[in-house]
Amino acid sequence: MVDISELSYALDTFYFLICGALVMWMAAGFAMLEAGLVRAKNTAEILTKNIVLFAIACTMYLLVGYHIMYSSGEGGFLPSIGFLLGSENTVDAVLAGGEDAPYYSARADFFFQVVFVATAMSIVSGAVAERMKLWAFLAFAVVMTAVIYPVSGYWTWGGGWLSAKGFSDYAGSGIVHMAGAAAALAGVLVLGPRRGKYGRNGAIYAIPGANMPLATLGTFILWLGWFGFNGGSELKISDVASANNMAQVLVNTNAAAAGGVLAALILSKVWFRKADLTMALNGAIAGLVSITADPLSSSALSATLIGAAGGLLVVIAIVTLDKLRLDDPVGAISAHGVAGIWGLLAVPLNNADATFGAQLLGIASIFIWMFTASLVVWLIIKAIMGVRVSEEEEYEGVDLAECGLEAYPEFNVAKK
Amino acid sequence: MVDISELSYALDTFYFLICGALVMWMAAGFAMLEAGLVRAKNTAEILTKNIVLFAIACTMYLLVGYHIMYSSGEGGFLPSIGFLLGSENTVDAVLAGGEDAPYYSARADFFFQVVFVATAMSIVSGAVAERMKLWAFLAFAVVMTAVIYPVSGYWTWGGGWLSAKGFSDYAGSGIVHMAGAAAALAGVLVLGPRRGKYGRNGAIYAIPGANMPLATLGTFILWLGWFGFNGGSELKISDVASANNMAQVLVNTNAAAAGGVLAALILSKVWFRKADLTMALNGAIAGLVSITADPLSSSALSATLIGAAGGLLVVIAIVTLDKLRLDDPVGAISAHGVAGIWGLLAVPLNNADATFGAQLLGIASIFIWMFTASLVVWLIIKAIMGVRVSEEEEYEGVDLAECGLEAYPEFNVAKK
Amino acid sequence: MVDISELSYALDTFYFLICGALVMWMAAGFAMLEAGLVRAKNTAEILTKNIVLFAIACTMYLLVGYHIMYSSGEGGFLPSIGFLLGSENTVDAVLAGGEDAPYYSARADFFFQVVFVATAMSIVSGAVAERMKLWAFLAFAVVMTAVIYPVSGYWTWGGGWLSAKGFSDYAGSGIVHMAGAAAALAGVLVLGPRRGKYGRNGAIYAIPGANMPLATLGTFILWLGWFGFNGGSELKISDVASANNMAQVLVNTNAAAAGGVLAALILSKVWFRKADLTMALNGAIAGLVSITADPLSSSALSATLIGAAGGLLVVIAIVTLDKLRLDDPVGAISAHGVAGIWGLLAVPLNNADATFGAQLLGIASIFIWMFTASLVVWLIIKAIMGVRVSEEEEYEGVDLAECGLEAYPEFNVAKK
Repeated sequence: MVDISELSYALDTFYFLICGALVMWMAAGFAMLEAGLVRAKNTAEILTKNIVLFAIACTMYLLVGYHIMYSSGEGGFLPSIGFLLGSENTVDAVLAGGEDAPYYSARADFFFQVVFVATAMSIVSGAVAERMKLWAFLAFAVVMTAVIYPVSGYWTWGGGWLSAKGFSDYAGSGIVHMAGAAAALAGVLVLGPRRGKYGRNGAIYAIPGANMPLATLGTFILWLGWFGFNGGSELKISDVASANNMAQVLVNTNAAAAGGVLAALILSKVWFRKADLTMALNGAIAGLVSITADPLSSSALSATLIGAAGGLLVVIAIVTLDKLRLDDPVGAISAHGVAGIWGLLAVPLNNADATFGAQLLGIASIFIWMFTASLVVWLIIKAIMGVRVSEEEEYEGVDLAECGLEAYPEFNVAKK
Repeated sequence: MVDISELSYALDTFYFLICGALVMWMAAGFAMLEAGLVRAKNTAEILTKNIVLFAIACTMYLLVGYHIMYSSGEGGFLPSIGFLLGSENTVDAVLAGGEDAPYYSARADFFFQVVFVATAMSIVSGAVAERMKLWAFLAFAVVMTAVIYPVSGYWTWGGGWLSAKGFSDYAGSGIVHMAGAAAALAGVLVLGPRRGKYGRNGAIYAIPGANMPLATLGTFILWLGWFGFNGGSELKISDVASANNMAQVLVNTNAAAAGGVLAALILSKVWFRKADLTMALNGAIAGLVSITADPLSSSALSATLIGAAGGLLVVIAIVTLDKLRLDDPVGAISAHGVAGIWGLLAVPLNNADATFGAQLLGIASIFIWMFTASLVVWLIIKAIMGVRVSEEEEYEGVDLAECGLEAYPEFNVAKK
Repeated sequence: MVDISELSYALDTFYFLICGALVMWMAAGFAMLEAGLVRAKNTAEILTKNIVLFAIACTMYLLVGYHIMYSSGEGGFLPSIGFLLGSENTVDAVLAGGEDAPYYSARADFFFQVVFVATAMSIVSGAVAERMKLWAFLAFAVVMTAVIYPVSGYWTWGGGWLSAKGFSDYAGSGIVHMAGAAAALAGVLVLGPRRGKYGRNGAIYAIPGANMPLATLGTFILWLGWFGFNGGSELKISDVASANNMAQVLVNTNAAAAGGVLAALILSKVWFRKADLTMALNGAIAGLVSITADPLSSSALSATLIGAAGGLLVVIAIVTLDKLRLDDPVGAISAHGVAGIWGLLAVPLNNADATFGAQLLGIASIFIWMFTASLVVWLIIKAIMGVRVSEEEEYEGVDLAECGLEAYPEFNVAKK
């Protein structure tokens, strides 16, 4: 005879695992998006970074990060250090029932969380593309996924002081996306812009991505994966309320992405007189990031508008960052950072449990932590091994220098 | 204590959401398929169309279309106008039980339906590729997803007069695929063929697609997504009969696609003496479309044969349309329209509840509605803003003219 | 009122179908990986092979293979011949309960199994790429998926003599991956190396793949699909123990892939002084193959190490095979064969129920069967129709000769 508690446990576990698999898929999305938006000569290296950072994130979070993030004390600031995973739930614990009884697999929880770390790390790789040393980047990935991300993650999702203060971030507009963007910004500052990006007298030169179908594919992959990212963050599906919530989350996530695309497209048409595909793609991502802080409380129409605002912001932010000579080849800081902040600030509009004060506190503290800690690590790496490839290597492309192969060896590619 | 009705509700909701996510993924499939089958100089624009049409579909169906399709009166012809989504199911309504009790989330239903609209619209974009103005296309997308598609959708799935007449279309061979093809056909007639496609004395010039890996990827994506498209159309999984049905649907969907590939490949080998990859890809899609009208009633072997017939038909249709000088760059009208009609006519072969009469009535009425309404809208758009790019823009490629960027800017691409 | 046995049946069926859909997706992964690793002039043909082999596998396994594999006698060596699928489970049989009551759809089982055959066959296509006749390959695919694979599959998963001997292969490191590699090795021996691959005095010439983003995408697809491949092989999710097991399997599968990437990258950096992307990709696959024989018994840390060992082995194996002048353009024999053997031998390290003796027996018998049967079939095909394209066709690329089209017709591709 089947036990209903066991069946419910199985459904929630399955739900978590499927959502986790969708989030893992976002790693492919970032890889394709970034590979499409860099130049051909730097494509193999960005692909290498993306698959290796995912491997590093999975390994370091297993070894150290997960324990830091989820086994530290309640309400605290400094996490406790520990290693590996805890024990799996026993059948008896499940059957005992009650408030504290586990209702899904502890391993499924790890699986869902580990792919989030990789997402945060993926955001960094795009922003520092085309000029950073591969192994400097990988060294940063080790520290970020083992320690930096888990600490601020602990503050909120791990039950630390920020969650106690009422900071609300449903699926990670701040904890994942703005966090990744803050680490990226530190990297961009340490690294400097790509050779030839900015000229005299404020001249800004466009460096188009080499492969638009890849970039579009990456965006679609991210869009799909986000259903797991936000949908899984409900953390439960096995009753009517939770199931309804997950459905609302998916509807809103999709609506916000759509709003982001339309707003970014229309703004770029009005502003630049062209329906700029890369802006539409960044609009989709910005819409997704914007709704991630609270994909549950708003109506679908409201979610569309929140996403649309994100789509406007990302276009403005990309232009502004270029004016500030902050060179982010894929627009990651704009799409994940600026839209992430907007998403966090939008939470109180629809969610009565959230306050602007707590949201601002969360934004400031996560940003300061991620930016400062990352900056220190970037500078240490710079001192030890350097972070930037040589001018000649940058001209020739980092693919040959770092990976010893080309992404498109048979194609006649113009060297730009 | 877990309630079994709640758990069942959760499972059905989860099933719907996952199937909907798979159907959303088909948007990426269409984007890649079409981007692979057009020329390089028109690739960025087709990508833009695909992601923007998805965003438009999601937004317009939310605002207007969903209400038209599913909240209009029973058995009627003219739908009622209304906006936005209805209310979500309450726990009490679920627990009340009985025939009419909701068994899955209303939001999940919207999520599943909205991605279907986008599918119908995606079919159009391929057929009108390489010569249509971007904004004319987007304007059409607004009307199609808000009104045209929802009206005939209401006739069948919304409980309108066609469903009362016994028309049977399980997952949308007619309502989605033939409908999209009919709208595409109207667009192709208004637009005319691509420059250089047809010469004097009946000469037909092949214009090969620029990127076969993309086209193949797109087909695989569609194949995968179709498991959600057909599998979700069972509308329930939480009992033995429904679960068995969904399994049969997936087996048959897969078998029909396989049959379509093999039949199209063999016919192209026999007819053209070459194993034409694009025909194999179109064979897969035609097989999938063919079984979509009834993926449940037939055996797997029968499904293979239905798909194989679709695979033969698509090859014949592509050649025939070219002879008729109807220029459809990706074969969308053949794969979705001709195979869709075949699929609808095949339903009575295996399903005793269906009749040829009702199927013919459905085919005729959906086709006439979709074609006529679309034609009117295309002509209005033509009168207002024009539908076709200038001859020079067509020669240079619509990417630069419409999007202001190139899909492969660094690659040395031959202008054909 | 919902029946709990029915609900459990529905959940297990849904779980199987989703896992099967993920495994189907691996077909796209192999297609992209192989299309990225061959030269541009042979890309359309490898794409054709991949989609058509999938169609053949689905059709032949439906007609013959599934019956051979799962309806033959217990403990036997020779399977019985039969056709098509058995009957679906009735509601009564499910409700009767007891040990033998079916707990998920028989059609879902077929769906899950059929995509495994396609995986085994996909492994072959890469190894024989760039020089084999298309139709010779397809003829082999017919025999392999109808008979060769199902026979050794019956020995283990079908309840034949190998399972009676205690051979342990959870998800198919041997039955699927090493089996595919053995068939591929026979093909490579019959076919010989590509023209220009090996020179005088032991010279080995690198022939880089044409499209690294595709190869990377393929690897990510395989990684995602593997969650279905291994996760579904638990065969049940509807109780706490099974749900926990599936979660552990996904955690370990992911960890092993990560370990494989890191080990292969580091070894290639140390050995070749370059962070070779293709080695990292093969490391991921080797890690996945290594853990597939038992993704359940080990801890996540142990799984990382098993995968890392696979990552080291694949680099060594690729170099070694080249020294032996066994030309495998994509490294399939190394990644699936060598890592598969390692994975099978690693089972007793963590699983007390497995013995080295039984594992060696399984490795030897599956390898001998797959290799010998494949060799005979390859030789018969060679005698009848030849297996290798002409020297001129190989120089010009098999795309034009076999498929009559080019993969990248507008791109200026260097002929190498």
